[in-house]
Parts: sequence; structure tokens; C-alpha cells
Amino acid sequence: MPLNLTQKLIQSHLLSGDMKPGKEIGLKIDQTLTQDATGTMVMLELEAMGVKRAKTEASAQYVDHNVIQVDNKNADDHLFLLSATRRFGLYYSQPGNGVSHPVHMQRLAKPGKTLLGSDSHTCANGCMGMLAMGAGGLDVALAIAGEPIYIKMPKVWGVKLTGELPAWVSAKDVVLEMLRRHDVKGGVGKIIEYYGPGLDQLSAMDRHVIANMGAELGATTSVFPSDGEIRRFLEQQGRADDWVELVADEGATYDLYEEINLSELEPLIAKPSSPGNVVPVSEVAGTPIYQSYVGSSANPGFRDFAIVAKIVDGKKAKEGVSFDINPTSRQLLTDLVKESHVASLLQAGARLHQAGCNGCIGMRQAPATGRNSLRTTPRNFPGRSGTLEDSVYLCSPETAAASVLTGVITDPRTLDMPYPKVEEPKNPTIDNKLLLEPLPLEEAQKVELHKGPNIALIPEMDELVDEMRLPVLLKMGDNISTDEILAGGARVLPFRSNLPEISKFTFEIIDRTYYSRAMASTGNGGHAIIGGSNYGQGSSREHAALAPRYLGLRVALTKDFARIHWQNLVNFGILPLTFVNAEDYDELKQGDVLLLTNVRESIKKSSEFLISVEGSNKKIAVKHTLSKRQVEVMLKGGMINWAKERHAQIQ
Amino acid sequence: MPLNLTQKLIQSHLLSGDMKPGKEIGLKIDQTLTQDATGTMVMLELEAMGVKRAKTEASAQYVDHNVIQVDNKNADDHLFLLSATRRFGLYYSQPGNGVSHPVHMQRLAKPGKTLLGSDSHTCANGCMGMLAMGAGGLDVALAIAGEPIYIKMPKVWGVKLTGELPAWVSAKDVVLEMLRRHDVKGGVGKIIEYYGPGLDQLSAMDRHVIANMGAELGATTSVFPSDGEIRRFLEQQGRADDWVELVADEGATYDLYEEINLSELEPLIAKPSSPGNVVPVSEVAGTPIYQSYVGSSANPGFRDFAIVAKIVDGKKAKEGVSFDINPTSRQLLTDLVKESHVASLLQAGARLHQAGCNGCIGMRQAPATGRNSLRTTPRNFPGRSGTLEDSVYLCSPETAAASVLTGVITDPRTLDMPYPKVEEPKNPTIDNKLLLEPLPLEEAQKVELHKGPNIALIPEMDELVDEMRLPVLLKMGDNISTDEILAGGARVLPFRSNLPEISKFTFEIIDRTYYSRAMASTGNGGHAIIGGSNYGQGSSREHAALAPRYLGLRVALTKDFARIHWQNLVNFGILPLTFVNAEDYDELKQGDVLLLTNVRESIKKSSEFLISVEGSNKKIAVKHTLSKRQVEVMLKGGMINWAKERHAQIQ
Repeated sequence: MPLNLTQKLIQSHLLSGDMKPGKEIGLKIDQTLTQDATGTMVMLELEAMGVKRAKTEASAQYVDHNVIQVDNKNADDHLFLLSATRRFGLYYSQPGNGVSHPVHMQRLAKPGKTLLGSDSHTCANGCMGMLAMGAGGLDVALAIAGEPIYIKMPKVWGVKLTGELPAWVSAKDVVLEMLRRHDVKGGVGKIIEYYGPGLDQLSAMDRHVIANMGAELGATTSVFPSDGEIRRFLEQQGRADDWVELVADEGATYDLYEEINLSELEPLIAKPSSPGNVVPVSEVAGTPIYQSYVGSSANPGFRDFAIVAKIVDGKKAKEGVSFDINPTSRQLLTDLVKESHVASLLQAGARLHQAGCNGCIGMRQAPATGRNSLRTTPRNFPGRSGTLEDSVYLCSPETAAASVLTGVITDPRTLDMPYPKVEEPKNPTIDNKLLLEPLPLEEAQKVELHKGPNIALIPEMDELVDEMRLPVLLKMGDNISTDEILAGGARVLPFRSNLPEISKFTFEIIDRTYYSRAMASTGNGGHAIIGGSNYGQGSSREHAALAPRYLGLRVALTKDFARIHWQNLVNFGILPLTFVNAEDYDELKQGDVLLLTNVRESIKKSSEFLISVEGSNKKIAVKHTLSKRQVEVMLKGGMINWAKERHAQIQ
Repeated sequence: MPLNLTQKLIQSHLLSGDMKPGKEIGLKIDQTLTQDATGTMVMLELEAMGVKRAKTEASAQYVDHNVIQVDNKNADDHLFLLSATRRFGLYYSQPGNGVSHPVHMQRLAKPGKTLLGSDSHTCANGCMGMLAMGAGGLDVALAIAGEPIYIKMPKVWGVKLTGELPAWVSAKDVVLEMLRRHDVKGGVGKIIEYYGPGLDQLSAMDRHVIANMGAELGATTSVFPSDGEIRRFLEQQGRADDWVELVADEGATYDLYEEINLSELEPLIAKPSSPGNVVPVSEVAGTPIYQSYVGSSANPGFRDFAIVAKIVDGKKAKEGVSFDINPTSRQLLTDLVKESHVASLLQAGARLHQAGCNGCIGMRQAPATGRNSLRTTPRNFPGRSGTLEDSVYLCSPETAAASVLTGVITDPRTLDMPYPKVEEPKNPTIDNKLLLEPLPLEEAQKVELHKGPNIALIPEMDELVDEMRLPVLLKMGDNISTDEILAGGARVLPFRSNLPEISKFTFEIIDRTYYSRAMASTGNGGHAIIGGSNYGQGSSREHAALAPRYLGLRVALTKDFARIHWQNLVNFGILPLTFVNAEDYDELKQGDVLLLTNVRESIKKSSEFLISVEGSNKKIAVKHTLSKRQVEVMLKGGMINWAKERHAQIQ
């Protein structure tokens, strides 16, 4: 049977399961990627699991999210990451070297390989003929330790590109068109595979733009063939040997099918405050802007900055408009400097920022309250810019450049100039200076982990307790998000490597007394919480499970769970239970004490059992949906304990 | 009588008093400079005083201190500053345009003029043959309103420079030599006037380096002649017409005299944690470093970055060392880009940051705990880097460049290379793109002040109350600093324009209950505090007086006051009293209630009067040192009220 590219990539890494949509499959992971916001915890997990050395072909730790350093915390984290990557045999991309996705693509990505990353835009490297997926930190830690990743086999969605992009329209408009058609949930449970003659005009970095924002479509990942363009790209990066050809078999089919005629596209823009809120630029032209922001992994290439430089060359940003240039990497910046594009940008009035994620994740360039910010970044969820009442539009570099000149949102086709042609640098810079190679094993074994005052060990977690007496410390309603469980942002993020400290923010939006009450419960066998429906929706951050566990949470009893948070609860040994009869939710109140007996046997024997309430005759029927493997994990007290034991056996 | 240059500058601006050291003189101010950390309050003060338009020849507002923007606050502040400068007829240097001192020098500084700035390094522009001085925000607001500045006539300290700087020794080493000889209080009460044949090799920007760090010597300011080099500099900046020659008269004398033979200097370094802790670099050579940081107004020139680029060109920063390049302005950065120096820096592994003050004021690049940071910045007070347990060394760009290559503190003379020669760019960039000119009067009058949610009005303050009943809410010991009264830093600074919010941090280091107790006192006629000796030492920040005043502080009774804080108390209508008999300090305790009667008459009539303590027969003799003018200010309830009335009369 002819296979599409996605099937080929999966088949060549399949360790368990069948490639039938919806079925669980286990995949071998060749490469991993971590960034600083999630990476410090990954390194602590490796330590806690007793991992000796990365078993992947290449694992790289990037420092790109939070490189501001207003106190010791970030700098201490960086030293910890440096020592941990030395210790565990990882690549280390120093702070300031650039954003993980384009740097990984330039230096380490290889066609035909799998990549798992603790960043939701890891899918960007699908542009390289890779199967590249985002995941939680502990899943990545397990992959580094040599474990498979388990996912449900997605549907494969073939998107055929035909025609040619008109002048002033570029890759960003292609993925915005996908978002215009399918909105932010259109890709859920699917892998998008791009193919067709339209690919010929899309450079590797253009494809990166499209693959990157597959995350905004909700797709598991996006996949592009490894063709002549990828060969050209790898040759340019001095890595010709890493190329292999990888395309779908002739006659391959897809579960879903779509076509985009590039010739019919026009400049598009996502209005506040969702990447799916897409309209033609012409529809909002004339809207005043406060800021035009160029950068991020959603438009990371030389072309994406050079086209802006060419458009603004010899002109001037509109008075009072903040013109922010956020280079994606030092390597890219060096080429932009050499080819005089940085000079053009500066002379037009640009603010040139350090290479990194910066404002894309609210770590810089936050706009003024209520003012319109135009960005080439991938996301405009409310408040993500750092400003609570923000108003962020997403667009192509062409649209951002045209608009900074006029001070209003401007369709670049209305500029009185020909569409500039960008020449790629003849001899692009290859810069490994801030990308440290893994140490050889013998040297690595000697490295001590460097833990500054902001780095705290992950405490040992005990096994699942057989008899539990758990006061209900919180009873919550429906749709509680992980942001409410444990917020992100500039206030909380600096404590990402310090569980005791970050735990203090747990549930603070819901109940400021939770922390102290929960802390007190740890001496008395812990506590439970009760949630409604869709408990734990939103961001995948694992701190939202780890912190409550640290504070003594043993059982989360809800109407139902959001998928990723449920996985995180399992990973950290919190028993996720749901009501057999949803109306029992109303029978329980905050302050009730739940009694669980013979739990270990119960969850092994059956997916349903009874719990009682202290001081009443009430019996509540509860159930779990743990697989046999997950029951084992739960009995051990979570994935870290489970993996620790397993790796003690292997090593 | 032949005059030295300082005397000429003072004489030409003298509005009151005699030029006798120690006597109060009133000086006309031609130009002012404000930065964002102090400027928002200055603008609110202009509004509160009812000022219509700046009366100075040129007043410029720079946004350079806090340009990180992790939420709306900074961005909202910037919009407020933009609107206020439009309204009041000021120049506005947009965020990202660069550090105030070098930008002011390049674009607005004029020989023969006076400059008052709400930044302690305002003295840097003394390099231009100006009398340039730092002051509190309200003093600068008053200068903008056309009021004189009152200072005690300083002694003039002539420093003759002879000889020639050896290879690898530069301007920073000259001012480090001054600090080595005289430490951080050596310049108190003095203006340092540099002259002599050694000046011929020091460019205008080299002189800026030396004048800048006069602040670290404690000097009122430093002064350099306006000679041929200043003409060359102004011509290069397209401002030849702004040049006038200004040198000391033949035979002029000085109150103090000193000579530095430049030929005898060697590379110097200030060890942690004081700029006065200076030793030869060779003495600490070999000390490992975590970071090499190039930037700030203490080494702001093209040369200061180009020499680093030339030293590291074709080489590589030591693995793991953070090599931070903080350009001082966009204009400078553009030239560094054009002349290929930025390419050299990047290729050596540099992190290139946005133009601004950045890490110099703890707003970026904070080092890891306890690690050695080598910087070309002016100050290394403990914690100023942002990291509490920091270890910062101050040095020349040459030493910073040599050390980043080796990873240890390195005397640049030991590098195996000839001392590189830096060519100034033939046609340096002149960049006014982010420096907005003042609006014409008619347009200006139409501008409304833009106040985002983080901008709060300065509340009206009532006149001095004649009969007061004031509970003592705090009794403190000696040497309480303004940092203890109201801290600075990344946590507090974002609220610089929001008095109700920033007030919540008042005295929090000393007593967390102060804020709520003080707030409660505002409904009952306010409160008093008692301090020991040297009360209010340290930073000049006026928030340390304004916030307590807002919280109801009416009387500060101490053994004695630090000078600037005393001035700030007067400015904001807090009556500063000292004990006639120091032992009375022991008679009072926290919780006592002070009774003051007939206060308005008392402070007019005499410098001494009696206050009583509720529920006892105790009478405490107190005194004040207010001048007649200051008594008037105090009766009005502070300088804002005083000026408001005065300007209502004038306008």
C-alpha cells in the first residue's frame, strides 16, 4: 500500500500499536528539544529519575524564553541548565543564541527523524521532513531517558498547494488562510501533510512558518517533504550529509483532503484575540497602531526580516509608533548585519532587541493598555503580550512593514513601490559559538549539577497510599483552567525551577488560603479537591500538577478532565477520579473528608469503586480510566518513581 | 581677576548669592534632562504646579531606564511621557533611542550652558564645557518652570592632565585613578575642573567617561573646556554653530590642585562592591568571570565599543561566559553596524541588547549569584546589578574585551597582539528619528495628558496645619537610608508614576504594618516618625518623601538628616525637625502622641520651639534649619503649592 509521508515517519518509529486513527501508538523519539521555561524542571526530573545520560541521538536545551535577568533567578537557572546539559550529555544553546525552533532547524534537525519538545511550537521542525511534536516536560524527560512517547494515532490531512504566491503575499498568509478556513480547533487529532507543486516556491524557512502555526490549528503536527529545497537548506548550513529524500509514495491517500491555490491568496490578518480570527488586511486597513513587532519562530527566517528592511529602507517609521525588531537568532542577526539590512532597519527608527522569544511570550515589548499591536508572532490570546487589556493583530512581515510606515494597518499591496526581491546571503553565517556540544561520557560523569539559591530539588514522592483520609480543601465549578491552578507570566515564571516557591501561587486566583491549608495537610496524609467538568483545560504546564502534589493533593475528583492535565496528574501520582453519577458532585462540599480504603487493590481490580464520607453513611461511586501501564505508574507514586526504578534496572 | 572655567560658567548664570565656597547661590538653568524612572513624576509635578510650558532653552525627556515592558505599566508610562512632553514643550526621546547622557551630548548639549537633570550622572555633559548637575525631580520640574536651582557654592578643584596615555590604557582608567586616589567621597562639595596638555588626546566622548564618573567621586560636577576637540565633535554632529570656545583665563587659580601624568597610568579595576575600591588589573588577574558587560553612559562612545570589537575580532568569547553588548544609542549602534564592528562582536559570541541603561541599573543581565561580573558601567554598589549577592568589577572596555577571551580577569597588556587603533567613522550617522522636537505652543496647548491605568495624579496637599496631634508610628535608629524608606528596583520601579500604589512599599523593610497604620492616620490629621542620626542617607529618590507625605507623615523628628532627603522633605511639606537635646530621642517611643501648637507662627519666629507629649508633662525642645524662603514653602504645604501659586501670578 502506498504510504503518505506521515505514515512513513510513524511506521519507521513505531514501537507499539497500529496506525489506525484514534488507537494508542508508541513511538521512538530520536531528538528532543527543551527551552528554559520548561527545561529546568525536565533536568530536575532527569536527576530525580536517576538518568545517567541522554539516550536520544540529539537532545538540545535552548535558553530563549526568559533572558531578561532582572535578578539572580534567571542567571542561576542558566548555570543550572549549563551544568545539567554537561552532566546528561545534551547540547546547550546559551542565552542570547536564539529561539529554539529556527536554531534547531539550522543546526540539528534531520529529515526522517522524530523530535519531541517541551514547547508547543516544536511542530515547526515538521518543515524538515521530521515528525516533530510538542509535549509536557516529563514526557520529554522520559524521551531523553529512552522511553517511547504514547499518542493516539492522528488522522492524516493532506493539504495540496497549487499555484504561485502573488506579490506582497508570503508564507504567513498561507497558514493564516488555513486558520481562516478551519479556526483554532480545526487541526485537533490530525497531522497536516503539505504537498503539491506550490511547495516549489516555499523555502525551508517559509515552510517553517506554516508548520509552526500548525500549533494554532490544534494539529498534532504538520509535515513537509524532504525535497531538493531541504537539500539546499542543509547544504547552506554545512550539513549536506544530513539530507535524505523523503516524500509520500505515488498514489498515497489521506484521511482528509484540502487544496489551497496560492495564486488566490491575499494579505491576511488575525484580529484580536484569537489566531483563528482571520480576515483580509484590507478589511481592517486604516486602524491606528501603537506598535509593529517583527520576530518570533512564526516568521524566523532571513527573508522575513530582510523583506521588512527592504520595504522601510530610506523611509521612516511613523512618529510615536514602536518599531520592534526581535531577531530569532544570533546567526540570523549576523547575516542581517552583514547584508546591511540591520542598518536599514535602524535608520528607519527600529528598536533592535536581543535574539530570543521576547514579546512573543510576554517577556518584552508589552503594548500600552488597549493600544493596537501588530505582530508577526503566532499567538494573540488575550493578555499573552503581557498587557492584560491588549489588542494584538497577527500578520505577515510585509503587512507589519507597510503599517509601520503609515501608522495604521496597511495592505502592503497599496504601498507605492514594487515588491522587493530578497536575495539570500551567498555565504550565510554558520554560528555554533553559543551552542555547546554534549560532553563525552567520561567527562560528563564528573560534572556536578550547579544549583543556585533558586533551584530546588523535586522532593521524593511516596507510593500510592492504600488507606486515605482526605479533607476536601477546594470545591470548584466547571472549566477550571491550568492558569487558575497555577498561573504563568513574568511574576510566576522566574520560580519555574523552585517547586517550594512556585507552589505558593497554587490556586491563588481561586482561593488565597489554599496554599497554607494545603501545606498543613501534608503532615496529615494530604487532601483532595473536587472539580466540575473540563477540569484542567488550557496550557499544558506540568507545574499545575506538580505543585498541588507537592502540597499534598492525592485525589482530584471531578465530573471530567481535560486531556493533558489528566495525563500530568497521572505523571505526578495524583489519582484522577470522576463521579460515576454526576449528581453526586452536589452531595459533596468543601470541608467534607473523603475516606478511601484498599485503594491499591481497587484501582487494579476495577475501574469503579466506592469511597465514603466521614461522619455520614454516604457512599460515592467513582471511576478511573487508567490503562494497565498507568495503574502501575500510579501505584509507584508517579512517573518519576516508575522511571527511576526502571532505569535502575537498565543501567 | 582671572577666572577658572567653573567660575565663568557660574558667574554667567548667577541669579543670587556670592561665589564663595559654602555660600548658597541661585543659578539660572538653560537645559534640563529627565529620564523615565524620575520623569513621570516630574511631569505630574509640572501638571500639579500648573506649568503651561517649559521656560528653559531645551528640556528633554529620555526613556532609557526601564524599557523591558513585561506588562502594560512601562508602555503606559511611555505614552504618558509622550503626551506630557507634547503638552509642555519638551523634546521626547522614544524608548530604545538610547541613554540620556550620550544622546543629550550628541543632539542638544551646548558649551557655556547649564544643565540640570533628574539623574545623578547628568554631570557627564560637563565634558562639553557645560555646568551639568544632577538633582531631585521636583528641582528639575522647578527648573523647567523657570525657577533657579539653589546650591552651596562648591570648591573648584583643578586637575591638570599631562603626559600621554600608554597603549591599552584609556579614559576609564583616568577616572578610576581619581577614584583610587580619592575614593567615593573625595569630590563632595567640589567641582572638578580638568585642564592641561593631556586633554589633547582625550576625545569629547573620552571626557564624557571621566565627567560621568565624577558622580562616583561625590563631586557636584566635573567641567572640561570647550576647545577644538569640542568643535570637531559638534561639527561631526552637524551642529558647528553651537560651538563657542570656553577655557579658563590665563593665570586662573583653583581652591584645590592636582596633577595626573597620563603616561604613568596602567589598566585599573574597581573591585566589589564600591567604585572607590580600585587596584591595578594585574593585581586581580586570573580571577574567573561569569560575564563581561560592555555599555552604559560610563563608556558610551563609538570607540568604547569599536575597541572591543577590534580586540575580539576573529576570536571567540570563552565558553560559558556571557558577553553582553549594550549599545548606548541607536545612532551609535548604526555606526557600529556600518563599520562592521557589530559583525565582529556577534561572531565572537556576543549577546547584543537594545540600546538603553539596561543592566547598569539592574534592569537586565543580572549576574548569577556570587559570580564575578566584569562591567564598563559606573557603579558596583552591592545589589545594583539586580542580584542581591553580586560581585561586580568595573573596568575599561580594553580590560573587559581581554577578559572575555580568556574567561578570567586579564590585564589587556598581556594579550599577544598590538593595541588596535580605532578609526572614527568618516561620516557618522546623525539620527533624530526617535527624538521628537517640542511642539509649537499653539499645538501643544491642545494636547491632553494621556494617563493609562498606571498613572495616578499627585493628590493636592494641604498647607502646614497650625495645631497637630501626631502619633509616632515608627521610631527608628541611625543611618536609615532612602532604600529602607522606599526601595527601588524591578519590583517597585514600575509603580513610579502611581503614588497610591508605590506608597504600599513605604518602610516595608522596617515595618510591614506601617502602610496600613499610616493610611489610617490620614483621616486623623496624620502622624510623625522618629529617626536617629543621618536619617535619609543614600539615593536621592523623591518618592521617599512623597510617599510618606501621601500616607499622612507631617513631621519627621530625628537626631539629624542626610542633605538631599532633608531637601525632599521640605519640597513635599513634611516638617523636618531635630532634637535640641539629642538625649530627648530616648525619652520618646513608638506610640507616643506628639502635640504641636501654633506651628505656623513658631517656625516663622524662631528656629527652636517646644512640643509636648500627650498624657505627660514632657516638653521636647526641637529646632529646624529652614531658610526664610523654605519656611514660606513649608507654610504652603510644599514646593508644588508654592510654585503653583507663583506661576498663577506669573502666567
